[in-house]
Amino acid sequence: MSLADPQFNALGELHHFIDIDGLDKSLLTQILDTAEGFAGVNDRTIKNVPLLRGKTVANLFFENSTRTRTAFELAAKRLSADVLNVDLVTSSTNKGESLLDTLHVLEALQCDMFVVRHGESGAAHFIARHVSPSINVINGGDGQHSHPTQGMLDMFTIRRHKGDFSNLCVVLIGDIRHSRVARSDISALVKLGTGEVRVVGPRTLVPSDVESLGVTIFPTLEKALVGADVIMGLRLQKERMRTATVPSSGEFYRTYGLSPERLALAKPDALIMHPGPTNRGVEIAGSVADGKQSVILEQVTYGIAVRMAVMSIVMGNATNLRRAQS
Amino acid sequence: MSLADPQFNALGELHHFIDIDGLDKSLLTQILDTAEGFAGVNDRTIKNVPLLRGKTVANLFFENSTRTRTAFELAAKRLSADVLNVDLVTSSTNKGESLLDTLHVLEALQCDMFVVRHGESGAAHFIARHVSPSINVINGGDGQHSHPTQGMLDMFTIRRHKGDFSNLCVVLIGDIRHSRVARSDISALVKLGTGEVRVVGPRTLVPSDVESLGVTIFPTLEKALVGADVIMGLRLQKERMRTATVPSSGEFYRTYGLSPERLALAKPDALIMHPGPTNRGVEIAGSVADGKQSVILEQVTYGIAVRMAVMSIVMGNATNLRRAQS
Amino acid sequence: MSLADPQFNALGELHHFIDIDGLDKSLLTQILDTAEGFAGVNDRTIKNVPLLRGKTVANLFFENSTRTRTAFELAAKRLSADVLNVDLVTSSTNKGESLLDTLHVLEALQCDMFVVRHGESGAAHFIARHVSPSINVINGGDGQHSHPTQGMLDMFTIRRHKGDFSNLCVVLIGDIRHSRVARSDISALVKLGTGEVRVVGPRTLVPSDVESLGVTIFPTLEKALVGADVIMGLRLQKERMRTATVPSSGEFYRTYGLSPERLALAKPDALIMHPGPTNRGVEIAGSVADGKQSVILEQVTYGIAVRMAVMSIVMGNATNLRRAQS
Repeated sequence: MSLADPQFNALGELHHFIDIDGLDKSLLTQILDTAEGFAGVNDRTIKNVPLLRGKTVANLFFENSTRTRTAFELAAKRLSADVLNVDLVTSSTNKGESLLDTLHVLEALQCDMFVVRHGESGAAHFIARHVSPSINVINGGDGQHSHPTQGMLDMFTIRRHKGDFSNLCVVLIGDIRHSRVARSDISALVKLGTGEVRVVGPRTLVPSDVESLGVTIFPTLEKALVGADVIMGLRLQKERMRTATVPSSGEFYRTYGLSPERLALAKPDALIMHPGPTNRGVEIAGSVADGKQSVILEQVTYGIAVRMAVMSIVMGNATNLRRAQS
Repeated sequence: MSLADPQFNALGELHHFIDIDGLDKSLLTQILDTAEGFAGVNDRTIKNVPLLRGKTVANLFFENSTRTRTAFELAAKRLSADVLNVDLVTSSTNKGESLLDTLHVLEALQCDMFVVRHGESGAAHFIARHVSPSINVINGGDGQHSHPTQGMLDMFTIRRHKGDFSNLCVVLIGDIRHSRVARSDISALVKLGTGEVRVVGPRTLVPSDVESLGVTIFPTLEKALVGADVIMGLRLQKERMRTATVPSSGEFYRTYGLSPERLALAKPDALIMHPGPTNRGVEIAGSVADGKQSVILEQVTYGIAVRMAVMSIVMGNATNLRRAQS
Repeated sequence: MSLADPQFNALGELHHFIDIDGLDKSLLTQILDTAEGFAGVNDRTIKNVPLLRGKTVANLFFENSTRTRTAFELAAKRLSADVLNVDLVTSSTNKGESLLDTLHVLEALQCDMFVVRHGESGAAHFIARHVSPSINVINGGDGQHSHPTQGMLDMFTIRRHKGDFSNLCVVLIGDIRHSRVARSDISALVKLGTGEVRVVGPRTLVPSDVESLGVTIFPTLEKALVGADVIMGLRLQKERMRTATVPSSGEFYRTYGLSPERLALAKPDALIMHPGPTNRGVEIAGSVADGKQSVILEQVTYGIAVRMAVMSIVMGNATNLRRAQS
């Protein structure tokens, strides 16, 4: 854990949650353990806890995502925070206001936490470096860089089903190159000591230097699936298929689609995961997405507990820091 | 009461509120009696009660309606629920997500209740049949099929002013064919034992088989109004006037518009009702809409109490069912 | 204080907050003193107080303004009110509903307070004159007429830094003619007994009759700045620059831009204020906007306390009135 990482405060505690790369195994485990407690809260009939009462969480979405915005909004509300949805896709630059001016206004409105979603890689880091020290920033996905809460909810889902990571064989399939989910998952899997992490996909979508992260590139999906405990599909951006370098939907499914036949190559209790929304018949057969090994909707559910965990940890650390400094 | 109706749970209690057709008089009366209590809450200076504290109500609006969405949002907030507004007009299919995938994601986010507004008849039924048993579905209007909370708030308004239904003469005017409000009102009026229900409107907008529902078609508005206790206008969709089968605004008003002169044919204390928004000078004269017999704005007010009643009844039943099953 | 002013109720207490013109010094001082208490609340880690619990505040924004809407939303939430955001830019007239019909529906939904933002001068007055007596109306900016909460937050900011108004020299720069902020600031400054209020700007943007309000027109920015305690920039609407009567951005900055050199002409502790968003390099140099004399972001922060003060005062008066009348 590097104190120079902008994610940490003067006490060396997590202040922003931007990127799994800078975090160590014990911190990832703390997040998973905390989420475990909130997963229990979400099963209760009254789901709210007062940990963030009187706090204001601003959802700053520069990129549309109903699914992710809703998950963060619910997580914040279940912690009893007030939530502001600031739709920056349409509003911010109406009056020629710069990003920093917008941020400073939201700071001045005494928001306590920013959840940031942005199409540019590095946007959440940029914002974290420029906000006042009283604000916690959580990355809700930035460009092709990082989507750390998705990474952690994937880890939570795996741990709930498989327990220890050290004996697991995990396969990621598809567009490794452009996927912020893949980056966050690989980083978390490696840090948590996963036995083997395999990646497989079209040559144009799997950068050869990805092996330096601690994963192994496999030549065919069939070979990658043999012995797999966890199979993670990734969303194929259809917009990219229009370019010459990426196969068509049909071609992709023929070579990399997770069909029932291919699934049979993995261990019989292998988990099927996908960050959603799935393209049925492209990345995955509908029957596999809906099948009994699929935990795709559990991932969504656990996403709330994991986000509650991250929010409550950084907010608690902010309180510790204020006390230490006063 | 048929147990095969998807609106009922395994205990035979109301689980979804989709359509008045499947409900019996005692259940309609329970809703009205419960709403009576909430109407008192809404008169207090502090209007919130904690019945749905910790619950999440998702407003799924596939069709724009600020008025109806706001009424449901207020009803849910006055019950202390958390409310998610999910604008599906713009967001859902951005990424090619199907309706069912969207629903399953919202289920996985552990919402407790869906309020559904959709342009297709049968959409609320479809959704109720496919959601997980832990979710309650309330129909906020589907196509030309049903708008049951509007029907119940109309009944509540009538009962508050007139008491018993058995001696009442109620007239519905205008576009009976396309109106989900008319369907729900007729169904509720007949079940509650209304003395006489009359319908009147242009031949193209009054289906001849409507009499099988227990109402009488009248040839002219003048004849229909004689002896009326309650006069219900219906919104004329201006878009339909462009087709050859429907009269123009001016023509409609000349034959079916509720003018002060025509109103004089009804009983002197006849109520004037309309689901809103009114087209003044088309369905109704402005002076009649604003006159002392008009209860159009009371309908809006009572809509909150009625929706609070429906929400609290289905949520209470869900709790009963969980207890019975555990 | 005139009882004929629609802002006052039958007890002569503030009922709507539309325009500073009709208010007297003691009332302005009451607002500032009340805001002082809320500024303390906003510094606490739990920022909510229960003064408006169970009340519903509807934000009626006929004109987009994320910044102002957010400030009102936060103020209402910190008072524990339920907040409805009704986006009337897109929704209201979808079905041909008139403004008054929309208002009456929101009244019927038993909202307690309307915050109104509208592009037409006089809109908030119009609405205040037509709503039911149970509703409080707060003007969030109407056309070129008035923006009274901005005026009061500017006064609050000045008082916090400078204490008494009687010895102050305040300069307003730029588009006096079209600015609702300038009108509200001038009115408040004069009522609070400010020593000297100067205005300066292009001839086309400074109406000659403005001096009748109690201010002095200065021929050049340099002369106006000598001895200034407070310097208030105003936003230049770029759309207006396209017409022949207004100088271009570059021209404006050369003659009226607040540069570091010009700032040196004012007192060394002069405050720099601006309602935001600023056009850097047009009305003000970036280094001045971000410099240590700038209180531009403090204005945003104090805006919450001031809006909480106004909301709690009018809501408390409504309670007094109900008691007096019952």
